[in-house]
Amino acid sequence: MKYCIGVDVGGTSIKAGLFKEDGTLIEKLSCPTVQGENGMLIYDDAVKLIESLIEGNSVEDRELLGIGIDMPGPVYGDGRLGQCPNIGVMGGYPAAEITRRLRKTVRVEVVNDANASAFGEMFAGAGKGYGSICMVTLGTGVGGGIINEGSIVTGTHGAGGEIGHICVEDNETEYCNCGGRGCCEFYASGTGIIRLYKRIRATGDPLKPYSDDEQIAAEDVCIRAREGDEAAIKAIDFAMEKLGKALSYVTYVADPEKFIIGGGVSEADDLIMDRIKESIEKYTPLIKEKGREVIKAKLGADAGMYGAAGLCVYRF
Amino acid sequence: MKYCIGVDVGGTSIKAGLFKEDGTLIEKLSCPTVQGENGMLIYDDAVKLIESLIEGNSVEDRELLGIGIDMPGPVYGDGRLGQCPNIGVMGGYPAAEITRRLRKTVRVEVVNDANASAFGEMFAGAGKGYGSICMVTLGTGVGGGIINEGSIVTGTHGAGGEIGHICVEDNETEYCNCGGRGCCEFYASGTGIIRLYKRIRATGDPLKPYSDDEQIAAEDVCIRAREGDEAAIKAIDFAMEKLGKALSYVTYVADPEKFIIGGGVSEADDLIMDRIKESIEKYTPLIKEKGREVIKAKLGADAGMYGAAGLCVYRF
Repeated sequence: MKYCIGVDVGGTSIKAGLFKEDGTLIEKLSCPTVQGENGMLIYDDAVKLIESLIEGNSVEDRELLGIGIDMPGPVYGDGRLGQCPNIGVMGGYPAAEITRRLRKTVRVEVVNDANASAFGEMFAGAGKGYGSICMVTLGTGVGGGIINEGSIVTGTHGAGGEIGHICVEDNETEYCNCGGRGCCEFYASGTGIIRLYKRIRATGDPLKPYSDDEQIAAEDVCIRAREGDEAAIKAIDFAMEKLGKALSYVTYVADPEKFIIGGGVSEADDLIMDRIKESIEKYTPLIKEKGREVIKAKLGADAGMYGAAGLCVYRF
Repeated sequence: MKYCIGVDVGGTSIKAGLFKEDGTLIEKLSCPTVQGENGMLIYDDAVKLIESLIEGNSVEDRELLGIGIDMPGPVYGDGRLGQCPNIGVMGGYPAAEITRRLRKTVRVEVVNDANASAFGEMFAGAGKGYGSICMVTLGTGVGGGIINEGSIVTGTHGAGGEIGHICVEDNETEYCNCGGRGCCEFYASGTGIIRLYKRIRATGDPLKPYSDDEQIAAEDVCIRAREGDEAAIKAIDFAMEKLGKALSYVTYVADPEKFIIGGGVSEADDLIMDRIKESIEKYTPLIKEKGREVIKAKLGADAGMYGAAGLCVYRF
């Protein structure tokens, strides 16, 4: 039996899982994320979790394929980390930090969180058995990760799979945080759905800037849509039309086998899935096959931990 | 010394080249493309060219890495060919057809023409030394091929790199041949530049449908732009802004190291290159590095033949 370990470093907690090489989770441990010293405390704690998993399960050195570390920031081809403001880490080489703290020689890989989630779903989730997938995480923002024939598409500037900032609307007048206008994330994220709902309810126009102080969550918009609220239905339809448009670009660039939709907004799969599929088809008329595969993610918030572990199976 | 052979099957001629494994062309032969019998005559002629190259240069079996066949149509993962109306071939398995006609056992691979051109530029042209590139061919249409870490991104439906049909304009009212509206190719191809020039000259608006009977080539529009013709300058600027927008999507999906621009329109590099770069930067504000790499292709119409040969070096 061979094993692998995945560590997911997030803003509130560090999670570490011991897996069989087929993707079965054996044990999961976690601790709070403590910021400071450019991440040194995080690496100390991560190694404690890793060593507990190894010792607690009597994993022999020769049985351990490797350890993957999932970090919430850009990761470049040489393993260098970019800025991770969420956890107070401003660069460095996470794999090297883990390696020099471990009392054994084992290969350590580092991966960006969106890419780790994509790899996790392929390793043990909704994309199991497929080699080329696109994972979309619909949360506060829109994250993306693309796997092409088993390899993560990282990209030269770490921008591979950054589908949240693809421009999908020429007539937007407000700016996105990234400095662009008409980004996919500006409409299809949880925040984007709320924005569209307020605009449509007040002005009837999804592209007319409007905001008010009402505290409302994307879940509430979904509930209202199910109850027949016209503005809520239109907001979700518009948002998913724009997401599908962005995914049509993914099709015409990388053409994955499946689109896997995760994140909080994916819980409203009854409202969003058909709309996303229709929109991808609308924007890719060259492809004759109907029923493009758009499915719901399976691993939830643990996808990154699975993916970090999975790297050790596929890449080593 | 190891050798490889690339065969390019086009609408008017079949070209075959013998190469050293470093991409140096040793000898090139060609013959006219004769349609009929679902491509059987093409395969007969291709094998004659291949055998002439091998015998004429005394290439030993153990020295030949393989043979690549570049076909003008979609090629699926299992080597099956889709429809190639230009050469009257409606499917089949080109690699198998070549193999059974050869009097020796050698590996044969088949590849789509846009992807072959991209691979060729990486093997021995403008992309040499790079692992991840996007090749754009601006001719009658807009073709694309993407190489990610040395592998062609073919895609599940053969749509990988089909950037010509990415939707880049929400306000277009006319339809593209593909059935969509606002396709990249509708503006940035040679035909597209002529369309834009006529629209702008007559109506002042690049999106207002207009056409007339004047026979004019994209080269003429470029000449007029250099002479200061406002409508010609605006047409080319608009076209390249739209191409850059499509390439921003390629950046946010696959993030290649270089964009390589080939095809007839690329001869106007003095007019188009800066505009493409500026547009990619405008639509990818997340990426801080300025001066995105956009360069002119080197291999011209032979790129596909080089790429088909290069497959044998990288994939075998």
